[in-house]
Amino acid sequence: MNLFDNLPRQADEELFTELLSWKGVRIERIVSTGQSTPPCEPYNQEHDEWVLLVSGSAGLWIEGDGERDLRPGDYVFIPAHRSHRVTCTAKAEPTVWLAVHLP
Amino acid sequence: MNLFDNLPRQADEELFTELLSWKGVRIERIVSTGQSTPPCEPYNQEHDEWVLLVSGSAGLWIEGDGERDLRPGDYVFIPAHRSHRVTCTAKAEPTVWLAVHLP
Repeated sequence: MNLFDNLPRQADEELFTELLSWKGVRIERIVSTGQSTPPCEPYNQEHDEWVLLVSGSAGLWIEGDGERDLRPGDYVFIPAHRSHRVTCTAKAEPTVWLAVHLP
Repeated sequence: MNLFDNLPRQADEELFTELLSWKGVRIERIVSTGQSTPPCEPYNQEHDEWVLLVSGSAGLWIEGDGERDLRPGDYVFIPAHRSHRVTCTAKAEPTVWLAVHLP
């Protein structure tokens, strides 16, 4: 199986695909095609998360850390209960994320 | 931090870098530059592993599954106690793996 299988060029919403769910760990592919998180609806999770931007580009804001630009290969640890949001993603190409949701 | 930081072009041995160790999960970058696992010394681990080939190319043999060629984006789940070995990796470019060692 390949992370780049069935990539949408453009979609109305982000595409979430679970690649593995095992002993409390979930590995997920997320494909963004220009979407961002509404500023008034940030993510805030019960679990820690480790995320890798595999292709494309994005902006990521994390409470307390501010905003950063992400390019392919960049990875970030997002602690539980820390508000965060995707401020932008590339429109010209799919942005592929690998998210590891930790126990 | 970026997965492609400080990539060796060529090295005598594979390079292992721990990116995260958290609640029983270890996320590791492995960089191969032509190395392979000696046939008589396969890996055999106590824990499950999920591995993604990020760049380069490799051959991977898993007991019971046989050998497969891996290209960028390919991912594989390797159950605990299943012998496996890397049969070859690209010599012309670094092969970057992301290994998630599960609890």
